[in-house]
Amino acid sequence: MTPIYSELNSILEQYISTRKNTVSICEPLSVEDHLSQPIVDVSPPKWHLAHTTWFFETFVLRNRLDDYKLFDSTFPFLFNSYYENEGKRLERNKRGNLSRPSVAEVYEYRSYVDKHMQTLFSQALDQDVLDLIILGLNHEEQHQELLLTDIKYGLYEQVFHPIYNSNFTEFTNLSTNSSMIEFKAQIAEIGYKGDGFCFDNELSRHKTYLQDFKISKEVVSNAEWLEFIESGAYRDFKYWHSDGWEWVKANNISMPLYWEFDGKDYFRFGLSGLKKLNLNEPISHISYYEAAAYAEFRGKRLPTEFEWEFASSKLNWGQVWEWTNSAYLAYPNFSKADGAVGEYNAKFMVNQMVLRGASIATAKGHSRPSYRNFFQANLRWQFTGLRLAE
Amino acid sequence: MTPIYSELNSILEQYISTRKNTVSICEPLSVEDHLSQPIVDVSPPKWHLAHTTWFFETFVLRNRLDDYKLFDSTFPFLFNSYYENEGKRLERNKRGNLSRPSVAEVYEYRSYVDKHMQTLFSQALDQDVLDLIILGLNHEEQHQELLLTDIKYGLYEQVFHPIYNSNFTEFTNLSTNSSMIEFKAQIAEIGYKGDGFCFDNELSRHKTYLQDFKISKEVVSNAEWLEFIESGAYRDFKYWHSDGWEWVKANNISMPLYWEFDGKDYFRFGLSGLKKLNLNEPISHISYYEAAAYAEFRGKRLPTEFEWEFASSKLNWGQVWEWTNSAYLAYPNFSKADGAVGEYNAKFMVNQMVLRGASIATAKGHSRPSYRNFFQANLRWQFTGLRLAE
Amino acid sequence: MTPIYSELNSILEQYISTRKNTVSICEPLSVEDHLSQPIVDVSPPKWHLAHTTWFFETFVLRNRLDDYKLFDSTFPFLFNSYYENEGKRLERNKRGNLSRPSVAEVYEYRSYVDKHMQTLFSQALDQDVLDLIILGLNHEEQHQELLLTDIKYGLYEQVFHPIYNSNFTEFTNLSTNSSMIEFKAQIAEIGYKGDGFCFDNELSRHKTYLQDFKISKEVVSNAEWLEFIESGAYRDFKYWHSDGWEWVKANNISMPLYWEFDGKDYFRFGLSGLKKLNLNEPISHISYYEAAAYAEFRGKRLPTEFEWEFASSKLNWGQVWEWTNSAYLAYPNFSKADGAVGEYNAKFMVNQMVLRGASIATAKGHSRPSYRNFFQANLRWQFTGLRLAE
Amino acid sequence: MTPIYSELNSILEQYISTRKNTVSICEPLSVEDHLSQPIVDVSPPKWHLAHTTWFFETFVLRNRLDDYKLFDSTFPFLFNSYYENEGKRLERNKRGNLSRPSVAEVYEYRSYVDKHMQTLFSQALDQDVLDLIILGLNHEEQHQELLLTDIKYGLYEQVFHPIYNSNFTEFTNLSTNSSMIEFKAQIAEIGYKGDGFCFDNELSRHKTYLQDFKISKEVVSNAEWLEFIESGAYRDFKYWHSDGWEWVKANNISMPLYWEFDGKDYFRFGLSGLKKLNLNEPISHISYYEAAAYAEFRGKRLPTEFEWEFASSKLNWGQVWEWTNSAYLAYPNFSKADGAVGEYNAKFMVNQMVLRGASIATAKGHSRPSYRNFFQANLRWQFTGLRLAE
Repeated sequence: MTPIYSELNSILEQYISTRKNTVSICEPLSVEDHLSQPIVDVSPPKWHLAHTTWFFETFVLRNRLDDYKLFDSTFPFLFNSYYENEGKRLERNKRGNLSRPSVAEVYEYRSYVDKHMQTLFSQALDQDVLDLIILGLNHEEQHQELLLTDIKYGLYEQVFHPIYNSNFTEFTNLSTNSSMIEFKAQIAEIGYKGDGFCFDNELSRHKTYLQDFKISKEVVSNAEWLEFIESGAYRDFKYWHSDGWEWVKANNISMPLYWEFDGKDYFRFGLSGLKKLNLNEPISHISYYEAAAYAEFRGKRLPTEFEWEFASSKLNWGQVWEWTNSAYLAYPNFSKADGAVGEYNAKFMVNQMVLRGASIATAKGHSRPSYRNFFQANLRWQFTGLRLAE
Repeated sequence: MTPIYSELNSILEQYISTRKNTVSICEPLSVEDHLSQPIVDVSPPKWHLAHTTWFFETFVLRNRLDDYKLFDSTFPFLFNSYYENEGKRLERNKRGNLSRPSVAEVYEYRSYVDKHMQTLFSQALDQDVLDLIILGLNHEEQHQELLLTDIKYGLYEQVFHPIYNSNFTEFTNLSTNSSMIEFKAQIAEIGYKGDGFCFDNELSRHKTYLQDFKISKEVVSNAEWLEFIESGAYRDFKYWHSDGWEWVKANNISMPLYWEFDGKDYFRFGLSGLKKLNLNEPISHISYYEAAAYAEFRGKRLPTEFEWEFASSKLNWGQVWEWTNSAYLAYPNFSKADGAVGEYNAKFMVNQMVLRGASIATAKGHSRPSYRNFFQANLRWQFTGLRLAE
Repeated sequence: MTPIYSELNSILEQYISTRKNTVSICEPLSVEDHLSQPIVDVSPPKWHLAHTTWFFETFVLRNRLDDYKLFDSTFPFLFNSYYENEGKRLERNKRGNLSRPSVAEVYEYRSYVDKHMQTLFSQALDQDVLDLIILGLNHEEQHQELLLTDIKYGLYEQVFHPIYNSNFTEFTNLSTNSSMIEFKAQIAEIGYKGDGFCFDNELSRHKTYLQDFKISKEVVSNAEWLEFIESGAYRDFKYWHSDGWEWVKANNISMPLYWEFDGKDYFRFGLSGLKKLNLNEPISHISYYEAAAYAEFRGKRLPTEFEWEFASSKLNWGQVWEWTNSAYLAYPNFSKADGAVGEYNAKFMVNQMVLRGASIATAKGHSRPSYRNFFQANLRWQFTGLRLAE
Repeated sequence: MTPIYSELNSILEQYISTRKNTVSICEPLSVEDHLSQPIVDVSPPKWHLAHTTWFFETFVLRNRLDDYKLFDSTFPFLFNSYYENEGKRLERNKRGNLSRPSVAEVYEYRSYVDKHMQTLFSQALDQDVLDLIILGLNHEEQHQELLLTDIKYGLYEQVFHPIYNSNFTEFTNLSTNSSMIEFKAQIAEIGYKGDGFCFDNELSRHKTYLQDFKISKEVVSNAEWLEFIESGAYRDFKYWHSDGWEWVKANNISMPLYWEFDGKDYFRFGLSGLKKLNLNEPISHISYYEAAAYAEFRGKRLPTEFEWEFASSKLNWGQVWEWTNSAYLAYPNFSKADGAVGEYNAKFMVNQMVLRGASIATAKGHSRPSYRNFFQANLRWQFTGLRLAE
C-alpha cells in the first residue's frame, strides 16, 4: 500500500523536527561534554547523536534508497547499540573512549543521513518503509530522553556540578490533592488501542481481571520522601527487599540520586544546577528498591501496570516515570518483528520492572497510557518516581 | 484456641518423621561430605542439619518452652540463614569454612532440640505455636530438597564424581503423550484454597483472567532438548534474552548442568553417578534463560503460573520444577506475618521467576497446585525443567 | 656414586621422624578441621598431608621403585601444588571443597607411601635419589610450618576462636638488649657454604659489597609496635609505600593479624587461644608493608638480606621470620634443576620480598643463615616480624 | 645562596622550551583526543597538560610568588596525581570523565602559570626555588614521554587505529653487532656523580660488587623476538615466572602489545600508523614477564641495573627502556625530601622492576646512565625492550 501524499508530508515534517530537537538538546554542550561516559549505563551524547542516525541509515537507507553509500564503513561497528542481527559492535563500556570520529564528523553524519532521508521522502514509499521511519522517530525520541538523563549524570560527575541550562525547569509543584481514587473489581482491557504508532510490547490488547483497588491521584513528593529518610528507613531492613537491602548496604545509599545533605539542608542537583530542595516537587531518581521500600513504609503498595493503565485518565501525571509492581513480561499473543527490529523490546523481558507515565525529559507526545518503560530494579539515573496504591 | 488431642498427636508424628527423614538423607555421607560448599548458593549438609534445628529452637522453643536453654550460645549466629530480625549472622559464603562445631555436635544439637520439642508437645499448645511448628516442618521439608540438590552439586564438584547412592532413581520415563490441552478464556480462581497449611505467598486466593491457551500434558524430555543443542541453539543469540545470551557467553554454557559430552555420547550425572543419557527422562537442571530460549526455539512460550495452576489437574507432573513465565510477585492482598517469620517469602519478591510443580527431590506431600517456588533466572542446581504453552 | 650404609640409615631415620612429625602436628585436629580453606593462601591440613606424600610418590617412588603402583590414579591431579611439568591439577581455591578422598584415606596414603619408601631404602640408592629424598624431607618441613600457620588461620576464622593446644607456647620474651651492632664496609661472601643440603636459591655463594651498617641485636617487640599503633601510624600515609597505603585503606588495617582490641585492652590469638597481649614478645603476623612503615616511623630501615646473613651470628633470632628490604631475585650463577624440581623456587623470583631467620613454627634444624624465605608484600598469616637497621 | 644571573637565564630558556615541547606533542590531537583514558594506567593528554602545570603552581608559585592567586580553586583537586601531602584528589580512573574544564581552559591555565613563572624569574631566586623549578622541568619531561605513550595507546584503542603523525619515526634499525662485552669482577661505583640534576633515587653513589659478567652490545630485535613467538614460547610455561604465566593465560597474551597478525604477516602499530613489522628494529612494548621469559628461552638472563650502569658507556642505547633484573629499591643512604616532593619516588619502592636507558619518547637530555625508571612487571604501554646478559 502506498501512503497518501498528505501523510508523507506530515511524517517528513515530524522527521525534520524530531531530528532538530535532538540537536537542540546538545546545544549547551561543549565538544568535551559530548564524550562523557561516567558509568556503563550512561552513553556519551556523541554516541546518542550517531546511534540514532545509524538507526535510519541501517534500517531504512541501506535497504531502501538505491545506490546509498554508507557515510563511513566503520560506523555500523561503532554505533550499533545491541542489535545482534547487525553483527559485531563496540563494547558498551568503551563508548566513552571514542575520540574518533570527532563530534563535528558526527554532526556531518547526521546531515548526510538527513539529506538522503529527504531524497527518500521524495520517492514513492510503501507502508513498510514508513513504519520503519516512524519507529526510527520514536526511537530517536527515546534517545532524546536518554540524552537529557545522561547529560545530567555526566555533569553531576564533574566534581563541581556545572549547569546545563540555568533556565531549565525540571519540575513544577505537585497538586495538594493526593487523595486515593477507588475502582471496583472488573475485567479491564489493557494494551494499545487505536491505529497510530505503538511499540510491539504494548500488544496485544487483552483482557485482565482487576481486583478492587485504590490509587493515589498524585505522585509522591519530596516532602513525603523526607519523612521516609528522617524516620531512618534507609537504615532499617524491615522495609526492604532482600536484594534492595544488599544494594543499600553495598552502595551506602541514604537518599535519592542527586540529593546532597550539608548537615543542615538538603540540596538537589538538576539540569539548572545544585539548588536547595523544593519540598513540593515530585520525588525523582529513585530505584525500584527505594520505591517499594517507601510503599512498605507507608503500609501501602505500588500499583500494577494494569491498574495504572486502567486508572490513567484520572491521574495527574507527566513529571516522573512511575515504578509499578509489575515485572516486564510479554503480553498475551505478543509477537516480535523479524530480524533486528525484533530485538527492540522482546529480548529485555526478564529481570526488569515496568514504569508507566512519562517524565519531564520525555519528548512531547511520545508517551501514552499503554506505554511500557522498563529498567532494572537498582537504576536511578532516569527521572523515576512513584505513586501509591492499596 | 487449643487444638484437640488427636491433631496434636498427628503433628508430633509428623514432627518425628520429618526430622528423621532429614537425617536419612545424610546417611550416605561421610563426615567430610557434610562440610562442602562449592559455590555460595549451595550450603553444606551440616549447615542444613543445624539450620532447620535452629528454626525450631528460635521460633518455638526459645519463646514457648519455659526454662529452655540454648544448646549453644554461638549457634544463633552460625545457623541463622537470612532473618535480619534475628540479628547478625555468619556470611553465607563462609558456611563451608565452619569446621566447628563438629558434625557430631550438630547431630547432638538435633537430638537436644527434638527432646525439648517432645516436652513441648506434652504441654497444652495453642494454635499459634502449632502454626509455627507446622511452618517449621514445611521449612524442614524445603531443606530436605536443598540437601539433595546441594549434596548432588557437592559430589559433582569432587573431581571424579562419586556416587551418593547407587540405588537412587532420579527420574522415570515420560509418557509419550505430549499433546497440548486446550482451555477457553475465562476468569479463574488462583491461590490456595482449603484449611490446611500453605505459605503466605499462595494467598490471597483471587480472580485472574486467563486468555485462551494450550498447555502441554507432559514436560520436555532429554530427547527434545538434544534437538535444541544439536541445532546449535546455544550458539545462536536469536533465541535468547539479552541477559541470557550474556550468561551463555560469560559461562560458556553449551548444555544443561550435569551433562557431559565425550565427543560421541552424552552423559548425565545423577545421585546414582555418571551415566549415559536416558533420552526419555525429563530435562532437568536448566536455567530460566535456557527454558525461555527453548520455548522460543519451538515457536512456543512458557505458561504463566496462573495457566499452570488452573490446568494442573490435567497435567503430568512431579519429576521437575517447571519454570513459568511469571515473575515472583505478591498476590493481591498479600500480607506477611510480623517479625522474623514475615521474612520467609516477602522480601524475595523481586528479580526471581516462579516455578511450579514439584521435583523428585521434593518431600512427599510437600507441594500442591498453588505452591510457588522461585529462583533467579540463571540458577540451575535445582531439579528444574519446563513445559510448553501457546 | 652409591652412598655409604651409615648415611642411608641416617636418612631413613630422618625420613621416619619427619613424616611422623607432620602427623603429630595434626593430632589435635578433628576430621572437620582437616578440610578448612578460609582463604586461597591457606590450604586444608588434609591437603598438606597428601601433598607432601605426593611429593615422594611423584619424584621418588614412581620413577625409582620397580613396579610401584600409584595409591590412587586421581591423586596426582588433586595433590600437585604448582608443578606445571606434572600436568593439570586442581585449582588452588578448590582444595577446601575436597570432601573426597576422606581424611582417613589420606592417612592411608601416607602409610602406603611410607611403606614403599622403606622398601626403597632397603635397596642400593644412588646419590641422585637420595638428593630427591632429602629435598622431599626439606619440602615436608616447609609444609609442617605451613600446617601450623594454616591451622592457626583456620581456627581463627571459626567465629569463636577455638584452641589448637592449650599448652602450645608460641613466643618467649625478648631479651631487653636491643642495641645496634655495627659493621664496617667490606666485601662479604653470601650464600650457602658447606656440603649439606641447601635450596637452589641459596646458591651460588658469591661476593657482595656491604656498606657500613648497624643492625639491631633483637627483633621488634609488641611493646614497640604498640607505640606505632598509638601514634596513629596506621592512619598516616607518610610512613607507607603507595601500595601499602592502598592495602591499609582497602582492608581497614589497624593492627597486626590476630590482634583484637576491645576498647581497652589488646588481645592476641595464638595456637593456645585468645589471650591478653604480652608486650615482651616479638611482633608477628605483619606484612612487609607494615614492617617497612614501622622502620620509616622509627627513622630507620629494614636490613638487606645480605646484611642480615653477614650479621646473623651476632643476632638473636628464631622466633619470627624477618622481613628484609631485599626483593626475591636469583643470585649470580643461579641455576635451576631440570624438570619439575626446577620449579621449586625459580619461578617465584618476582614480586616477592625475602624473609630471613626462622620462626617458632619452623622445623628444628630446617633453617640456616643462608636460608631465603619469601612472600608477597601483603601477606601476614606466616609468623613474620622484623628487625631494624640503619 | 642566590644563583648567578647567567644560570637563571639558562633555566628560564629551558623552562620556555620544555613547556613549549609539551604543547607541541599535543598539536596533532583533536579536542576529543585530549580526553581519552582507555585504561587506568593511561591518562588523558588534557590531564597531563594540566598536571604538569599544577606542579609549578603548587610547588613553586603558590609558596614563592607574592600575591599569587590560583588559576582555579578546583584544579588542585583535579590535577594532583598522587601527592597525599597535597590533600584529596580525583580518583585516577576518573580522569577520562573530566569534560570540564575544557581543553581550551587547560591551555589558558598553562599560559597563566607560564606568565607568572616569568614574573618569578624576574625576581631574585634562591637555590631552593631553582631546585624545585628544575625538578618541575624534569617532571614535565617525564610527562612528555607519558604523553606520547598515552596518546599512542589511546589512538590504538580507536577501533581503526588512526595515525598520530605520519612522519613520526619511532625506531631506526639496530646495528648488526650484537656481540657480548665482557667485564671482570670488581667493585663498581653506582649512582649519580656530578653536580647537575638527578632524582633522589639515583643517590647515594655507592660501591657495589659486580661478578664477572657479559652484556650484549645491542638490544633484542623484532627478528629475534619472532623466533621466540614461533617456537611456541608464549604457550610453554617453562620459560615463565609463575606470575608471568598466570598473566599470559589470563590475558591471552601471544605477542607484544601493538603487534597484529593477520594469519600471514605481522604488523606493528606505531605513532605513524599500522605497518608491516620491520624485523631490524628493537623489540618494544613488552612486559618484564616477557623480557624474563625471553632471556630464559635464550639460556641467558637480564642484566642487573648495576651491571647495566657500569657497562653503559659501551652499549648502544636510546631507543627503548630496558628491563633489568633488579627490583626497584632504595640505594644505601637514600633520603627523601620533606613534604610532598618526598613522595616523588620513595613511596613506589616496592613491587616494581627497574628499567634503564631511555626510549625514542624520552625528552632529549633527560636520561643519563644513572637514571632509574621503574614499572610493574606486567605493564607494556611504555617503549620497553631488553638486552641480554650472562
